[in-house]
Amino acid sequence: MIRINYQPAGTPPATLIPREGSKPRAEIRLIQYDADTIFEGGFTTFRELATRLDPAKVNWINIDGLGDVGLLREIAEHFKVHPLAIEDVLNTAQRPKIEYFADHFFIVSEMVYFDDGGRLTFEQLSLFLGHHFVLTFQEECGDAFDPVRARLRGGRGYARKMGADYLAYALLDATVDQVFPVLESVGNSIETVEEELLDKPSKSSLKKLYEAKRLLLFLRRASWPQREIFNSLIRDDTGLIGKETQIFLRDCYDHTVQIIDIIESYRDLTAGLMDLYLSSLGFRTNEIMRVLTIVSVLFIPLTFIAGVYGMNFDRSQPLNMPELGWPFGYLFFWAFILSTVTAMLLFFRRKKWI
Amino acid sequence: MIRINYQPAGTPPATLIPREGSKPRAEIRLIQYDADTIFEGGFTTFRELATRLDPAKVNWINIDGLGDVGLLREIAEHFKVHPLAIEDVLNTAQRPKIEYFADHFFIVSEMVYFDDGGRLTFEQLSLFLGHHFVLTFQEECGDAFDPVRARLRGGRGYARKMGADYLAYALLDATVDQVFPVLESVGNSIETVEEELLDKPSKSSLKKLYEAKRLLLFLRRASWPQREIFNSLIRDDTGLIGKETQIFLRDCYDHTVQIIDIIESYRDLTAGLMDLYLSSLGFRTNEIMRVLTIVSVLFIPLTFIAGVYGMNFDRSQPLNMPELGWPFGYLFFWAFILSTVTAMLLFFRRKKWI
Amino acid sequence: MIRINYQPAGTPPATLIPREGSKPRAEIRLIQYDADTIFEGGFTTFRELATRLDPAKVNWINIDGLGDVGLLREIAEHFKVHPLAIEDVLNTAQRPKIEYFADHFFIVSEMVYFDDGGRLTFEQLSLFLGHHFVLTFQEECGDAFDPVRARLRGGRGYARKMGADYLAYALLDATVDQVFPVLESVGNSIETVEEELLDKPSKSSLKKLYEAKRLLLFLRRASWPQREIFNSLIRDDTGLIGKETQIFLRDCYDHTVQIIDIIESYRDLTAGLMDLYLSSLGFRTNEIMRVLTIVSVLFIPLTFIAGVYGMNFDRSQPLNMPELGWPFGYLFFWAFILSTVTAMLLFFRRKKWI
Amino acid sequence: MIRINYQPAGTPPATLIPREGSKPRAEIRLIQYDADTIFEGGFTTFRELATRLDPAKVNWINIDGLGDVGLLREIAEHFKVHPLAIEDVLNTAQRPKIEYFADHFFIVSEMVYFDDGGRLTFEQLSLFLGHHFVLTFQEECGDAFDPVRARLRGGRGYARKMGADYLAYALLDATVDQVFPVLESVGNSIETVEEELLDKPSKSSLKKLYEAKRLLLFLRRASWPQREIFNSLIRDDTGLIGKETQIFLRDCYDHTVQIIDIIESYRDLTAGLMDLYLSSLGFRTNEIMRVLTIVSVLFIPLTFIAGVYGMNFDRSQPLNMPELGWPFGYLFFWAFILSTVTAMLLFFRRKKWI
Amino acid sequence: MIRINYQPAGTPPATLIPREGSKPRAEIRLIQYDADTIFEGGFTTFRELATRLDPAKVNWINIDGLGDVGLLREIAEHFKVHPLAIEDVLNTAQRPKIEYFADHFFIVSEMVYFDDGGRLTFEQLSLFLGHHFVLTFQEECGDAFDPVRARLRGGRGYARKMGADYLAYALLDATVDQVFPVLESVGNSIETVEEELLDKPSKSSLKKLYEAKRLLLFLRRASWPQREIFNSLIRDDTGLIGKETQIFLRDCYDHTVQIIDIIESYRDLTAGLMDLYLSSLGFRTNEIMRVLTIVSVLFIPLTFIAGVYGMNFDRSQPLNMPELGWPFGYLFFWAFILSTVTAMLLFFRRKKWI
Repeated sequence: MIRINYQPAGTPPATLIPREGSKPRAEIRLIQYDADTIFEGGFTTFRELATRLDPAKVNWINIDGLGDVGLLREIAEHFKVHPLAIEDVLNTAQRPKIEYFADHFFIVSEMVYFDDGGRLTFEQLSLFLGHHFVLTFQEECGDAFDPVRARLRGGRGYARKMGADYLAYALLDATVDQVFPVLESVGNSIETVEEELLDKPSKSSLKKLYEAKRLLLFLRRASWPQREIFNSLIRDDTGLIGKETQIFLRDCYDHTVQIIDIIESYRDLTAGLMDLYLSSLGFRTNEIMRVLTIVSVLFIPLTFIAGVYGMNFDRSQPLNMPELGWPFGYLFFWAFILSTVTAMLLFFRRKKWI
Repeated sequence: MIRINYQPAGTPPATLIPREGSKPRAEIRLIQYDADTIFEGGFTTFRELATRLDPAKVNWINIDGLGDVGLLREIAEHFKVHPLAIEDVLNTAQRPKIEYFADHFFIVSEMVYFDDGGRLTFEQLSLFLGHHFVLTFQEECGDAFDPVRARLRGGRGYARKMGADYLAYALLDATVDQVFPVLESVGNSIETVEEELLDKPSKSSLKKLYEAKRLLLFLRRASWPQREIFNSLIRDDTGLIGKETQIFLRDCYDHTVQIIDIIESYRDLTAGLMDLYLSSLGFRTNEIMRVLTIVSVLFIPLTFIAGVYGMNFDRSQPLNMPELGWPFGYLFFWAFILSTVTAMLLFFRRKKWI
Repeated sequence: MIRINYQPAGTPPATLIPREGSKPRAEIRLIQYDADTIFEGGFTTFRELATRLDPAKVNWINIDGLGDVGLLREIAEHFKVHPLAIEDVLNTAQRPKIEYFADHFFIVSEMVYFDDGGRLTFEQLSLFLGHHFVLTFQEECGDAFDPVRARLRGGRGYARKMGADYLAYALLDATVDQVFPVLESVGNSIETVEEELLDKPSKSSLKKLYEAKRLLLFLRRASWPQREIFNSLIRDDTGLIGKETQIFLRDCYDHTVQIIDIIESYRDLTAGLMDLYLSSLGFRTNEIMRVLTIVSVLFIPLTFIAGVYGMNFDRSQPLNMPELGWPFGYLFFWAFILSTVTAMLLFFRRKKWI
Repeated sequence: MIRINYQPAGTPPATLIPREGSKPRAEIRLIQYDADTIFEGGFTTFRELATRLDPAKVNWINIDGLGDVGLLREIAEHFKVHPLAIEDVLNTAQRPKIEYFADHFFIVSEMVYFDDGGRLTFEQLSLFLGHHFVLTFQEECGDAFDPVRARLRGGRGYARKMGADYLAYALLDATVDQVFPVLESVGNSIETVEEELLDKPSKSSLKKLYEAKRLLLFLRRASWPQREIFNSLIRDDTGLIGKETQIFLRDCYDHTVQIIDIIESYRDLTAGLMDLYLSSLGFRTNEIMRVLTIVSVLFIPLTFIAGVYGMNFDRSQPLNMPELGWPFGYLFFWAFILSTVTAMLLFFRRKKWI
Repeated sequence: MIRINYQPAGTPPATLIPREGSKPRAEIRLIQYDADTIFEGGFTTFRELATRLDPAKVNWINIDGLGDVGLLREIAEHFKVHPLAIEDVLNTAQRPKIEYFADHFFIVSEMVYFDDGGRLTFEQLSLFLGHHFVLTFQEECGDAFDPVRARLRGGRGYARKMGADYLAYALLDATVDQVFPVLESVGNSIETVEEELLDKPSKSSLKKLYEAKRLLLFLRRASWPQREIFNSLIRDDTGLIGKETQIFLRDCYDHTVQIIDIIESYRDLTAGLMDLYLSSLGFRTNEIMRVLTIVSVLFIPLTFIAGVYGMNFDRSQPLNMPELGWPFGYLFFWAFILSTVTAMLLFFRRKKWI
């Protein structure tokens, strides 16, 4: 889940290479609104869309699919986006970051969610925020933004009354809130492991624990830089972000801090559980060893004695194994055995083994 | 104990959802006082209460129970509280924090205490502090604030002579001081484990140790941000906090620093104890192994020898087991056994095993 | 050694509760001097002493014993000490700290020393420094300050020529220098453990090691905030500390930094020793296991063979154990045994076990 | 891979000692270009080259081989380079760094790449950047700069239109991008180990894991200071770096941050895998022990009983082993054996061993 | 190697106590030079030397041996050195540091080198730098400064042309460069251990590893504060350090950073090796256990069976051990043995033990 995307060393900067495996044609959608009106539509070329853009309204252009390099170039030209930023849109292994350009922001964010099949997915969201437009690029058309679209259509909440900055907030907020269910599932899995470990450490709990640790590592990588982005936005003084929206962004910042806090706590917990696993194993091994040792130490010498009296020395020789002929030999044998066992049990008790 | 509360991604901000499991009707209480007079009373609706408010006095409105969303909306409107702050009141998995608004503070604090049944409880306290009012929201009506109420009624200490800022201090101070008995109980449990470990490491001490570690983790999560709150308050220059109250808040800050210091020390101690546990186990296993090995190494070869002379080879064949017929065979056998044992004991001593 | 002192949550601030176990009557001593004269005397009440105070001289009032709350209140009133500071004097589980008040400092410091019985003792020193007075509160009258008193009496060194700030320095310096012998003893104990571990890891070295770790933890808790105090004093610009005294305080600061440096190095060493202990144990266990395995693997199969030929199958049946009747059966048996042993020894050598 | 290069203590500063093992004659190449023209050529002495330099164009002088101290001295004199910087060019164990001189920068960077034989190689690149020249020193003529040369020749991209600062950027960018394939190979090796560990921990996975850890350590050493260099360059205000080039350098900075992020994540992963290895081993040992113990504890006592009834006590004595003569003795024996086994199996089940 | 030097608590500050074990008479040497002339000579008293001092030249006074307190007092008086600084000269367990006084610096540095017998030695160098003098105090007359003296005599390099600041630089540079060979030897020892560990973990590699860790700890303690010293010197604005010398000091700073970087990398490596040691041991133990278990589990039940048929039940009773009389009993026995062994081998294979 640590993606490494790179171009051969020495490639000229801002070389655009279509994302491998991406659909060649992107889906282009425009939502254009102000407090009173809303227009929504799909386009096949950017040229068509460009004619519809209206600087008096908020224009949200969403591109799904990163396979069409020509389209990206057109968009970059129209919105005066730096070629390096467009390169970062294509290179989807970016670390979340924010970059300031003359009249717009460029934000790379990481979306973390369970896809329809329940598999955890990390996906890059690239977002450009200008005075009257928001440009978003995704590879897969996730449904995280559907509720935002619904709010825009319904004119519910603040959504329609405010500018492009608020739209950007709403989209980023949706990506942040997606992480909570993922965290919840990690939390559940940690709790299960905890119970298993104290009861009986097994290989499967070890695997689950390691999975959780790994997942937390990836979530952490995505969350810390996210925090920097919001921190940067709520301190913004370029005028792109309104005062009112900054209060909402502060809420996003809080959520990210909370997410990081939970991740770090979970990391601490998993580290503690790893220790617990090793200690539990050590304890069990010790206990097993103790039983083995007690039984072996008790019986091995006895077996030797029994072996001795099973030897076939020629008893016609007077000094050979006279014990075997004694009237009470067998009773003596048992008496000896029992006293040996008793002595050993006392020894074990002194050692606190039983 | 890591609560994760969240609304589905894309929910409009400041959506108020009643706390699941909360009682639908909140208890509303007002304590209103100045140096000379005090009024105390319960109300069923906020409208009734609102008419009693008097900006010339300190008004403490305490809401127990977060199930009545309508009530919260009324209050928010009356005191001009930001909707996002009200959302945070309901979402009780907040990290302790302080937020500054135009004419009031919003403080989220974590109360940690043993409830009546002796179970450790974490609960969120939401507190708004304005020029002449303090608004507190809790889910369960704990009794931590009873002593403060008593002091207000009795007119004891500074309590009645000072403003709303001092009341907020007194309430926060009470929540901070609640942590000490919890820490004390953790300390006792660590001490017990320490003694057990050096004596005989058991599974139950491991469990206790792990419990203490977990608990410390939660306490730590609650305490570090608390420190930030007080740090922020004692540096406040908005005028909401008087100079004199800031000296008292410095005391709260000191207590939180002390709590954090104790928590970190305990964490260090528990980490050391985990190491000690593993080492103790390792030592015991080593000791048990040594005994097992000594006994096995002594007797296994002897048993083999005894086994050999218990074989039934046909002694009528001249080369078959002539030793059995020797006059002193049996004595030779014992002499051989004893010299083998002696040699092995010397070997063990050289290895420092006995 | 982690003391937790607290008052029930909700207790009014600055409530004075006599230290449990403290002697009810405090010893009050005054040393009053300038370059030419010195007066020294004990008093039974503060009122008597107050009449002797002379702002033209340095007045050192030392209170031993924290059981007399009334006395403390009188002193607080006379020197205009804040009630919260007096509360901190009584609550002797404070973290070392410095607090600035209008015309005096309040310093809480931790004294660490071996008492007469050789037991390590942590004790709180509370010190108020004003323009012409130094107020010190201790619970036990230790003898750390005796050399300072002797220097004052003898008029040796700078002591008598300088002001109250220098006296405060001399007292704090004495408390800092007390830590060095404690560190030395920890160092010795670490060195002993080091030698023992490489030779033969025992349970007692484990205990000693853990003791050292614990002790270092407590020393560290006491030393880091101490450093902050001196750092604060040498940057002081309130005028209470003279330039010349600040050079001396810089020396104290250096000593504290050195103490912290030694503590951290020792902590590193003990962590390394814990690793060494575990590795040594692991190595010994491995070695023991190897011996056990070699002997068992050699002899267990042999014993089985011997057991087989000790079976009593009816040899009158032609197919039953014909080997027993072979002329060279016994020799074959030994040949088989020896070749098995040789093969196994070669296997062990290949595995690098012998 | 941690190279330590040093001159005997007390050697005068800026003593130039030819790199041991370096070819005595360096290869000197000049590429000189502006937007319209490009000249490229090799020289045998610096004097020849010096006459060709043209301050109106960008002059890139590349020196391969550090064996010719005289050449370096000539160059240093011509470009007014500080002797200590030239010493650092020769001492190729430098930490990446940037140094500011009156009218040029001196950058030491670390190139990390797989050489033609697939072996990982660390090599120092020393780069001087002046207003119209770039001076680069390498020991081996790697091919990382070939694409840059090709771009210059082809006049592709920004390359030819911009100044010496852009050339320096292009070279540094090429060295940064070389690290990605190395990281990718580390990532693959970590993934392989991960799979092996959960399946069956072997010695070879341990070796691979340790190799990965070591490699990450070296990459980390090279990357952190690299980040400082770019951070310094994008904040540069000496005028040597143009505003436009700084945007490109910001991209380099981003890449370095990304590299560091991946390295740290891999370090976390390898640490987790080490834990996993130990836990897996512990688990396997525990499982093996359990089987050993169960079998031993079951059969050792039984073998003793069988041994007892194989003893040859003289049965003519009435009390000697009467069991052997009982009609159902053998059946009793088996009944006893079976009930013992059953009891033990129950014991094991209670202990959760089976 | 952690020296703790202290005076009893309460000792007046700046008390001079001759270093225990120091030679009572110090060697006093003066080297006085300017660009044209150089004078060198030994003196027996400071008075003689004082008359030779010439503020127009650079005067380097070197004192070997710290046993003569009177001499130190004379020097302190002559150069107006603060008594606390002189106390620090004598107390040779100082942490490296720099202190600023009115018209001179006081630098305490740590020299780390292999002495003539190859033993690692830590020694304190105390250096005072004034406008026209450098005062150095050492306990043992090491030969680290001989190359500097030679350069002064020969007039080589910058040495003679520059002032006292350059001399101080040259001396500090010599002490820094002494550390590299020590690091190199640590590196070699780590490499040896690495190879041994992967091959066969032994007790001696453990000892070597621990030694390396310990040594790195001491080197680290000496190097970090050294870095602070140089950092402070290259930012100096008191005028004692010339601009040109600061460039040279920047080189020293670089070397110290490089030393610290190597130390930290080595520490990381040794930590990794400790893990590797434990894992290797665990792996070997696991492997040994596996062999033991396989052999025991195979043969212990077989031995029991053989034991059963060696019992002497009275076969005249019809139900006693009829198997012994069966015509193919012995063959059945072997068939049973072989099928049991086969079954077990399959079980082991399923468990991936063989």
